[in-house]
Amino acid sequence: MNVLITGSNGFVGRHLAELLRRRGHIVHGIDIHEDSWASWMRYAKVDITKFEDLWSVVSSNSVEVVYHLAAVANPRIADSNPLLGISVNVLGPCNLLECARLRPSLKVLFVGSSEQYRTKSGNHIRYEEHDEQRAHNIYGAAKIAFETIGREYHRRFGVNVYFTRSFNHTGPGQPAEYVLASFAEQVRAIARGDQQPVIKVGNIKATRDFTDVRDVVCAYEAVVEHGVCGETYNVCSGRVYSLKDLLNQMLRKAGILDRVTIETDPKLLRDDDPDAVFGDNSKLVLHTGWKATRQIETTVQELVAVDSE
Amino acid sequence: MNVLITGSNGFVGRHLAELLRRRGHIVHGIDIHEDSWASWMRYAKVDITKFEDLWSVVSSNSVEVVYHLAAVANPRIADSNPLLGISVNVLGPCNLLECARLRPSLKVLFVGSSEQYRTKSGNHIRYEEHDEQRAHNIYGAAKIAFETIGREYHRRFGVNVYFTRSFNHTGPGQPAEYVLASFAEQVRAIARGDQQPVIKVGNIKATRDFTDVRDVVCAYEAVVEHGVCGETYNVCSGRVYSLKDLLNQMLRKAGILDRVTIETDPKLLRDDDPDAVFGDNSKLVLHTGWKATRQIETTVQELVAVDSE
Repeated sequence: MNVLITGSNGFVGRHLAELLRRRGHIVHGIDIHEDSWASWMRYAKVDITKFEDLWSVVSSNSVEVVYHLAAVANPRIADSNPLLGISVNVLGPCNLLECARLRPSLKVLFVGSSEQYRTKSGNHIRYEEHDEQRAHNIYGAAKIAFETIGREYHRRFGVNVYFTRSFNHTGPGQPAEYVLASFAEQVRAIARGDQQPVIKVGNIKATRDFTDVRDVVCAYEAVVEHGVCGETYNVCSGRVYSLKDLLNQMLRKAGILDRVTIETDPKLLRDDDPDAVFGDNSKLVLHTGWKATRQIETTVQELVAVDSE
Repeated sequence: MNVLITGSNGFVGRHLAELLRRRGHIVHGIDIHEDSWASWMRYAKVDITKFEDLWSVVSSNSVEVVYHLAAVANPRIADSNPLLGISVNVLGPCNLLECARLRPSLKVLFVGSSEQYRTKSGNHIRYEEHDEQRAHNIYGAAKIAFETIGREYHRRFGVNVYFTRSFNHTGPGQPAEYVLASFAEQVRAIARGDQQPVIKVGNIKATRDFTDVRDVVCAYEAVVEHGVCGETYNVCSGRVYSLKDLLNQMLRKAGILDRVTIETDPKLLRDDDPDAVFGDNSKLVLHTGWKATRQIETTVQELVAVDSE
């Protein structure tokens, strides 16, 4: 089967591409860079905000499924350049909705975010798909805006689309702009002696729902294969991890737990950051049979062990 | 004061331009046509989906207020060309949000729609601003999507923006693609003898909240002058009119009530058309002191009397 990954050069894109290749699919990729990281990928440089360029890739390659990962994925970047965030995160996927309208057999998976949910407080803060949405940054507003349009496209034109609200994920290759990858990078640098034994952190009292990226991409495949068209699925482990605990696990693994100072960097504190976020994955599990196969504790140890520098 | 109207060649734009001119403002206009209808207007042809072009008009003319009317205003058109609807109705106003971010003194009024509300049924169907939103067509989805982003822009960047949800309006100059103007055009043609005495209608059992366009543009001015920044206002009369009654008033005025057949044209029936839509304008009235000054019964008679053809 011909499958297309938008954002194929990204952290999640690479893991998904490897999964789909192992499944025997012909993997096409698009991204904004000149070249792909993988010689076996059928790659084109395409700006997803340009409909004609996108349509030419989708229509000329017998693509049957599109996994839409291309996005301004970092809320900080969307907040500091909101028009870019809106153009890429709203207009980009709308262009794919139109591709799905023009080619009714096409299936498209759209990756949304847990940041779409209205922040809950109190003891019962597990997010379910029918919970109220409310942006707490431009990134979340753009994701809500797109899903609103996407659901109406489905209702009106019957396009074969699937939506996710993906919670935190991590794993090999994640850029250090994300929290656990940032911890791991600092831990490795200290262990090597390349950094003073001080770790800069944001709000590590926060708890988050982490899933290994290799489980996340399996969930995306499962949604397209077994999910219900037009539906939205939380993609999450349903388990809650303390950032502080995970950091301590990394420090212990690297053997530097006793000699490291943890310092809060005000620049890493986000005013829109809820204390606790975790999701209910029962709809995903029920509809698709998906199950996380990896323990984040193990993933975290991998992050510290890998030192490609 | 320098004020800018986007969509200044449109039905509402012309009435607003005349009002603002009477108030002594310097009226700038942009639209997609080569020229303005008014020689006194400072006009430029600008595509609102192009940020740089929009910014050059806003930044170079000491504009203090923007009234954003430019839109794909007809739900049928947005549904038949959804990417156009999304680009103009989402990306266009987002470009203006960005103008407001770059120039913090700028005020911008964004015109939304009663089509943003989730359809209610039953006896109590007066829509209030805090009611749930739910699209019933691509037009409504785009309007909801934009307002989601606009509210977050306000919360995050403090931009001076105002939102309306405008209900049906009518008045001199309305194009015949809208229901009362279409009735009036047919009534005039029959009275002149240019049309067989058959009026084609959609669902005339429906009831709608109509406001005279000259009252609507006063409401827009009132929101910018007296409204609360970041708030959303229903713009409506709060009165409910039966389409059938209004049509009968036109027929009576033209003296052809007895000799006309009313025929339902399936092409004019919209599957997303609620039976009854009317709004609560108490927030608008309370915050701005606005009050409708014209009776729709009189407006309707004007529509039949005017025969510019």
